[in-house]
Amino acid sequence: MPSEAPVAGISPSARISPRAQIGEGCAIGEFTIVHDNVVLGGGSTVESHCILGHPTPLAEDRPLVIGPGALIRSHSVFYEGSSFGPGLVTGHRVTVREKLAAGVNLQIGTLGDFQGHATIGDYVRTHSSVFIAHHAQIGNFVWIFPHVVLTDDPHPPSEVRRGVVVEDYASIATMSAIMPGIRIGARSLVAAHSLVNKDVAPDTVVGGVPARFLCESSKILHEQTGRPAYPWMRHFRRGYPGEILASWARQFPDEGGRP
Amino acid sequence: MPSEAPVAGISPSARISPRAQIGEGCAIGEFTIVHDNVVLGGGSTVESHCILGHPTPLAEDRPLVIGPGALIRSHSVFYEGSSFGPGLVTGHRVTVREKLAAGVNLQIGTLGDFQGHATIGDYVRTHSSVFIAHHAQIGNFVWIFPHVVLTDDPHPPSEVRRGVVVEDYASIATMSAIMPGIRIGARSLVAAHSLVNKDVAPDTVVGGVPARFLCESSKILHEQTGRPAYPWMRHFRRGYPGEILASWARQFPDEGGRP
Amino acid sequence: MPSEAPVAGISPSARISPRAQIGEGCAIGEFTIVHDNVVLGGGSTVESHCILGHPTPLAEDRPLVIGPGALIRSHSVFYEGSSFGPGLVTGHRVTVREKLAAGVNLQIGTLGDFQGHATIGDYVRTHSSVFIAHHAQIGNFVWIFPHVVLTDDPHPPSEVRRGVVVEDYASIATMSAIMPGIRIGARSLVAAHSLVNKDVAPDTVVGGVPARFLCESSKILHEQTGRPAYPWMRHFRRGYPGEILASWARQFPDEGGRP
Repeated sequence: MPSEAPVAGISPSARISPRAQIGEGCAIGEFTIVHDNVVLGGGSTVESHCILGHPTPLAEDRPLVIGPGALIRSHSVFYEGSSFGPGLVTGHRVTVREKLAAGVNLQIGTLGDFQGHATIGDYVRTHSSVFIAHHAQIGNFVWIFPHVVLTDDPHPPSEVRRGVVVEDYASIATMSAIMPGIRIGARSLVAAHSLVNKDVAPDTVVGGVPARFLCESSKILHEQTGRPAYPWMRHFRRGYPGEILASWARQFPDEGGRP
Repeated sequence: MPSEAPVAGISPSARISPRAQIGEGCAIGEFTIVHDNVVLGGGSTVESHCILGHPTPLAEDRPLVIGPGALIRSHSVFYEGSSFGPGLVTGHRVTVREKLAAGVNLQIGTLGDFQGHATIGDYVRTHSSVFIAHHAQIGNFVWIFPHVVLTDDPHPPSEVRRGVVVEDYASIATMSAIMPGIRIGARSLVAAHSLVNKDVAPDTVVGGVPARFLCESSKILHEQTGRPAYPWMRHFRRGYPGEILASWARQFPDEGGRP
Repeated sequence: MPSEAPVAGISPSARISPRAQIGEGCAIGEFTIVHDNVVLGGGSTVESHCILGHPTPLAEDRPLVIGPGALIRSHSVFYEGSSFGPGLVTGHRVTVREKLAAGVNLQIGTLGDFQGHATIGDYVRTHSSVFIAHHAQIGNFVWIFPHVVLTDDPHPPSEVRRGVVVEDYASIATMSAIMPGIRIGARSLVAAHSLVNKDVAPDTVVGGVPARFLCESSKILHEQTGRPAYPWMRHFRRGYPGEILASWARQFPDEGGRP
């Protein structure tokens, strides 16, 4: 939403390290701090009260790299040592620690808390107050809804770490917790308020505490069209570029051939 | 809690647009930003590190209107395009997007995330980390406790939006999720940690994952008096004006006629 | 993690009351506010955008006392009237209200919201987005994982307050809610995504909605060693001083006498 952005330029009260590499045409808001070890792509907006490149020895001197065209909303904190492809968009008060590697056009909702030491693919969207622990491996086009927690420790507290794996196009509904090392299959749906402690097969729906198989995901019908609501790429298109939509039309053609 | 307030006046580091309309006797804290399209009622306090009137094209040029006597605690963000009656009180780090219309004396707990495009009645109280999605219709005197989520999308992700309806005097206990389009009946109680996917009848208690009818709400007994704890307006009076309490005494007389 | 700390000194944009008592060798970040009624121990770091000693009449003029060697990360808010032993460490955006009394080396995760009027022992660790209501009594060496809520009102809303009691070495896994007045026994484990409405016996595991007895905690086996994962003090040692570890070796010897 570029029209939310302040005009390009550094606000007078921002504290920008002269060693930070700020691309052309960036806008940086009031009371924002940019530390030394930051590479910010051109045309990015960083709103007010943020911190970029927060120092930590755990980053082992790697920079924070944010691709061009980012929109980082206010009060967010990014540590040094993580990298993001072009088109990052965040809500307010996001926290991202070191050693997260994320692809193109990640969207992180308000109050997201990403612990780093994890990988995220392209075009992933996470909503408000999502917590992602270490070693998560999140694929492409994944959706994670408000208050979802991905864990990493099978018998807390311990030194064992097993990251959650979320495959492409999976969708995890609000307030679900995913146990360490669990694999959420491609194009699957985790229903709201579930505790997932077994792997979820592709193209299925699970739910409950603990979560159990509910149905094939194609059995969930879209309320307006009466056709299958999953895979969602058949009906939900907002915010994806044309070449992605064209690819989906080939990969996930409408079952009845209807538009 | 006016005695928490700084004395009236604009802190020297605050950034206030000359086009913002600030009422008489307001106090605005350090490092707070007030954008152009803001009408702030007289006698209000806005603490430090806040943003009022954050611009968005989705507001369609409507202002942020905050009634007189507001207390907005630190690090909060309000977009342009929402309106609040007199006596708004918030915790810290609240986020409110555009096109929320709220009545008198709304209280939003710390970390509340209200997505806007919703209506809220009078004297509503929400606690910490409450998430309210689009199209919610919340009545009067409603209570929503920590970490509750009101959703809006029946098969996420999709373009379908069905708001939750919460009727007057209903109470939703901690960490419950309410599914899209569900109606929470008047004077009902949703027990803690519930997933509500069916309408809740007035004057009943539901609970569980998924939530089921547990009992009439009058069967829950107050631990100190032994009389019914619901409707709660018979015993809980803190923070409401005298005329409201008088009205409750008539509408919800104590069953045994006892004081 | 002292190497994250800025060098000692007061940042130029910080607003420090001349009546605040700041110990030797403290570092205070940009855009941070320190009010009058604050005693900050020597060698502490307070990052940017924080508020210390936020005034409230509910503190009854008691100061905010933070022991030496604290690390308070950015955007945190501490009210006057609470006290913390040496070695406090917080994440970002922590909120702590008045009349919390905490011991040595408390660690509060990012987005923690502590309502005050509670006690916390020594070496307690709480993770991201933990909510602690009034009158909680938390022992020593307790672990509380992300998005856990400790409640206080048995029939909300009411004026009845019964705090949760968490005994030494107990562990509460992610996204569990503990009902008012419940006692979580020593060395017990509450499994993830549970609703706990009955007391939990020492050395047991409970889980579910509502939570039921699952097993003795010694039946949970460590994934790498195959020996009991609880009590966790047999295998988890990171971050505790040598005298504590020596004490644990005596109190909780490995069952097989193995190192």
